[in-house]
Amino acid sequence: MNPIISVFAVSPDRGSGLARDMAVRWALAEVGVTPELRPLSFAELQTPEHKARQPFGQIPAYEADGLTLFESGAIVLHIAENHPGLLPADRHGRARAIAWMFAAVSTLEPVVLDREYTAMLEGDRPWTPERLLMLDDRIRRRLADLATALADRPWLEGDFSAGDIMMICVLRRPPCRALLAEQPALAAYLARGEARPAFQAAFADQLARWQAASG
Amino acid sequence: MNPIISVFAVSPDRGSGLARDMAVRWALAEVGVTPELRPLSFAELQTPEHKARQPFGQIPAYEADGLTLFESGAIVLHIAENHPGLLPADRHGRARAIAWMFAAVSTLEPVVLDREYTAMLEGDRPWTPERLLMLDDRIRRRLADLATALADRPWLEGDFSAGDIMMICVLRRPPCRALLAEQPALAAYLARGEARPAFQAAFADQLARWQAASG
Repeated sequence: MNPIISVFAVSPDRGSGLARDMAVRWALAEVGVTPELRPLSFAELQTPEHKARQPFGQIPAYEADGLTLFESGAIVLHIAENHPGLLPADRHGRARAIAWMFAAVSTLEPVVLDREYTAMLEGDRPWTPERLLMLDDRIRRRLADLATALADRPWLEGDFSAGDIMMICVLRRPPCRALLAEQPALAAYLARGEARPAFQAAFADQLARWQAASG
Repeated sequence: MNPIISVFAVSPDRGSGLARDMAVRWALAEVGVTPELRPLSFAELQTPEHKARQPFGQIPAYEADGLTLFESGAIVLHIAENHPGLLPADRHGRARAIAWMFAAVSTLEPVVLDREYTAMLEGDRPWTPERLLMLDDRIRRRLADLATALADRPWLEGDFSAGDIMMICVLRRPPCRALLAEQPALAAYLARGEARPAFQAAFADQLARWQAASG
């Protein structure tokens, strides 16, 4: 049985691969597993049936072998623990790759999403131009620290890992990408990730589905 | 060798156990390990020496047996993987407890910190009262979903786990606690966590250190 991933029926990202199922699709493509998809409308996300899969009414949820799992970081970690190739073999490297997964969703992503939501939900408010400058500076500081940590290595911890999947999915978000001209090493890191055949395959699949669903 | 935890020399939380080392201290107390502490000033956090431990210049960092680790979620998971008692024994329960760890730091904590930072950094701005109402409603929706998921169980996934440590550390933050009168099941869950002897011991230790350091 292939795993079932709950996704947006018509993703608001318009096929740009910014919805949080992208990390899960990418990880599955890296290990050669093809998911089945459960497309859900915004109304369906808020039903008790979906919240039994994903308590906060979000996507993605993951179902396989009697396990129902939520949170893209936890799902990617579960995939990485059950297939070779997405975590370092040594115990210390493995722990550090997992640290980068948490850093992606807990230290970088929140400041990036805050910037996106402010532009999207409060774009017409008088205070927003001033707040956006402040929020961009907060992202800049995180990116500078990330660039220092990456240094001249190709990936964050040894070989390509689940930590890179989670981090690159955040770097792909527009507020990061807009600032990456200031951080050429991170721009190259992002490009390396997006050039991977598994990323390309997962991206093409979600784009094709968006095009089909949006008519 | 006991693990070394990097912490604030004088925590801005004034000993209320809201700094992110609290989850790590609590997890270590649950498994009977006493950490050594590396107290750092705000200036020391920004040095290359500390950023080699914690790339974003934050606390906590964790050092043990040649491993240097960062992100409280990753550190608590590492402790849980290397000591019995903080993760379900079955594979599916373990994955779901880890999902709650990610949910705590990636789905609940960001909206809570956003509320805290807005009140702290933008409290004097004309737009802030309106934004605080909006941010409180965002927290309310998350808490309602969490209460539904917890239902009438004592802990989020089987026995007490690392998922509860991470989630309860977020519920302890003032914007959550202020709203918990609306969610009695979560208030009781928080109280159960704080009543655990390991929580009490870790809390007392950080409070005593704050009192000593702040003179």
